[in-house]
Amino acid sequence: MSRAAVVDEPVLLARAYLNTVAEPASPAVWSLVREVGPVAAAARIRGRDRLAPGVAGATEARYALVEPATVLARAAEVGARLVVPESPEWPHFGLAALEHAGVRRLVTLDAEPHKYREVGEPVPPLALWVRGPGDLAALGTRSVSIVGSRAATSYGTAVARRLASELAGCGVTVVSGGALGIDREAHLGALAVRGDTVLVSPGGLDITYPTGHDRLFGAVADRGLLVSEHPPGTPPARHRFLKRNRLIAALGAGTVVVEAGRRSGTANTLNHARRIGRPIMAVPGSIESALSVGCHDALRDAQAPAVLVTGAGDVLEVIGAGSSPGVVSQPPGEGAGRPPAGRDSRSSGTRRARAERRRRALDTVDERSRCVFDGFPADRAVHPDELVVASGLTAREVLVALPQLEVAGLVEQVPDGYRITG
Amino acid sequence: MSRAAVVDEPVLLARAYLNTVAEPASPAVWSLVREVGPVAAAARIRGRDRLAPGVAGATEARYALVEPATVLARAAEVGARLVVPESPEWPHFGLAALEHAGVRRLVTLDAEPHKYREVGEPVPPLALWVRGPGDLAALGTRSVSIVGSRAATSYGTAVARRLASELAGCGVTVVSGGALGIDREAHLGALAVRGDTVLVSPGGLDITYPTGHDRLFGAVADRGLLVSEHPPGTPPARHRFLKRNRLIAALGAGTVVVEAGRRSGTANTLNHARRIGRPIMAVPGSIESALSVGCHDALRDAQAPAVLVTGAGDVLEVIGAGSSPGVVSQPPGEGAGRPPAGRDSRSSGTRRARAERRRRALDTVDERSRCVFDGFPADRAVHPDELVVASGLTAREVLVALPQLEVAGLVEQVPDGYRITG
Repeated sequence: MSRAAVVDEPVLLARAYLNTVAEPASPAVWSLVREVGPVAAAARIRGRDRLAPGVAGATEARYALVEPATVLARAAEVGARLVVPESPEWPHFGLAALEHAGVRRLVTLDAEPHKYREVGEPVPPLALWVRGPGDLAALGTRSVSIVGSRAATSYGTAVARRLASELAGCGVTVVSGGALGIDREAHLGALAVRGDTVLVSPGGLDITYPTGHDRLFGAVADRGLLVSEHPPGTPPARHRFLKRNRLIAALGAGTVVVEAGRRSGTANTLNHARRIGRPIMAVPGSIESALSVGCHDALRDAQAPAVLVTGAGDVLEVIGAGSSPGVVSQPPGEGAGRPPAGRDSRSSGTRRARAERRRRALDTVDERSRCVFDGFPADRAVHPDELVVASGLTAREVLVALPQLEVAGLVEQVPDGYRITG
Repeated sequence: MSRAAVVDEPVLLARAYLNTVAEPASPAVWSLVREVGPVAAAARIRGRDRLAPGVAGATEARYALVEPATVLARAAEVGARLVVPESPEWPHFGLAALEHAGVRRLVTLDAEPHKYREVGEPVPPLALWVRGPGDLAALGTRSVSIVGSRAATSYGTAVARRLASELAGCGVTVVSGGALGIDREAHLGALAVRGDTVLVSPGGLDITYPTGHDRLFGAVADRGLLVSEHPPGTPPARHRFLKRNRLIAALGAGTVVVEAGRRSGTANTLNHARRIGRPIMAVPGSIESALSVGCHDALRDAQAPAVLVTGAGDVLEVIGAGSSPGVVSQPPGEGAGRPPAGRDSRSSGTRRARAERRRRALDTVDERSRCVFDGFPADRAVHPDELVVASGLTAREVLVALPQLEVAGLVEQVPDGYRITG
């Protein structure tokens, strides 16, 4: 509770109340909070004071029953704390896209209500329950959501685990749900290299779903973060899965689908990601596998095709890790498309040749060196200290990697430090 | 020889001489023939009369040795006839793209000579040796080149064979080389459904390469066509493979790569196809397979990404079979990209939903019915007779298929015949 303590208690109590009194992702409640602030919104809901019909309806059943201090105490018993937009741990970077989508939603709801029914409400959470040593705010600049089918094949599970290990080994936080199949393997892959991983659950953090995943949830809580929009005691339900998916889409700088059937919950997560402008990536597979159909469909989506990825390097390139973190969030319809490299056809031949040369050279160095290389800015020299920050590796690891990269012809020493060779 | 007999004998002899006196794909010789015609070009080369240095060099070694009547007689002994641009069997449709590329090449050679060294000369053949009952001119409007690695995996061979069977079953001619692996399976797949198949060989038609493929070459010669630019007696050589690849790319309305390693001869064929504006398609596979790397690289090519295909229906959509055959040849940089459906973002959501509905409905009908459906024009009613032509099936098969398509909601009967439902 120490981190939560930096937030004013009335605000924390108000958010705990608001987040419990209505099912999450109510645009009406979110809009009221946005307008009058959490403390006044909570007071008005409790007092049935000047409530829009949407707010009144959403809070009707529980407004008199919720006691936020009790909810916070119960959460503390199961090791969960409440992270709110007013606390330093709030993942503004990741959730800003939902803010924007929520505002657009308020504007367009009357005109095109069908738009949102398809994929669920895009509004940001009012607060998040969190359990584990990780810092939620550190997410977003270097995080990737890995999603896919519960009924994954041995191919999908192996790919998900390896991809998560590679990404986590490069200092990227892995974000996923808590289901069997791809979700599980993504977390295990990150944990295997002692990397960071975030499990977003569709129920309260005292509930493990599926029940066989006690050890997985425990391991994530020990090393990374369990996250939920729901207070302890909330059972998972279908509508909660769908709303949960928007958080998975938002908390990753990009979303990778490893395996998915033609119709699956994964498609819902991808739709959320598309809507909020996050790049979508897909791993191809056998055309004879029903579990790769969803991936192939994503790759040839007419509006916003997923980018084909075959390894962590491809994913890092798409989310823009190594360059300015600010570029990872792109406007809808742009971000989910191909990387910008293809747009300027004049010099793309040369660029392609250079990219190919680099790819081959990178095959000759070890994985940590590849992580260090990914931390280089494209256009200027850097001091090794900066690479330590960018790569998430130790100073020693960076200093071991640099000569390797130099021998491979990938970087060169210059008066200001090191830079990528032309 | 009966079909060749409709060509004037001096022209046939001149073309036989020209095609033998220089290695094929000489831009200088092709340019001279284009300028003065085959008879005058042959006379000038034989008489060393006003020859540009390129022509003189290319014909220096053999100009006095080649006796075209002897070459034609020797070819007739092995069952091969010479098809020339002046004969009705010349595949103008397929080779027109090479004409255009050749003209551009003459214009740009001095400015950018490196452009052509990469992928080989784009000029059309001066004549083609052909063996088998097929009609080369009937190609082009409905033909697909299937290419890939000699060292294909069991996945690649199974996919190549099935894809070729499906396409040939829809009346599409399969075009490929004569190598082990993907080439072989493509021909076998077409032959298995008694479909049409064309094998373009890098050597003379009396030579089987690889030697173990005697039965395959024999089966293709019995039912389809063996094609070569080289007179009998010419052994395959590396440079002949590369030139041969341009013919494979040109004779298909589109090229599908089923399996290929990172660097392979397949990449050369794809480059030819890109250059002449033919759509490129690729079958995805396991990211753990080295033999799918070439496919995945093609799918994410920055300049002209291949279209992801998982079955014959996807391929037919790309080559535009069922709509006007005239649209299959598209300008470079456009044709090899995604299908135009993605470009108009305003209505693509609806179109996508309709495409999805259709795809599901097509899953419920048999393969012949799908072929019939592929033969429907998008925007008007047709009489069943027209569908017989478009689908390559018998009238009886079409009449059995139509009620199936009607029940599936894919087509409807209207006063003028049948049309696709909105």
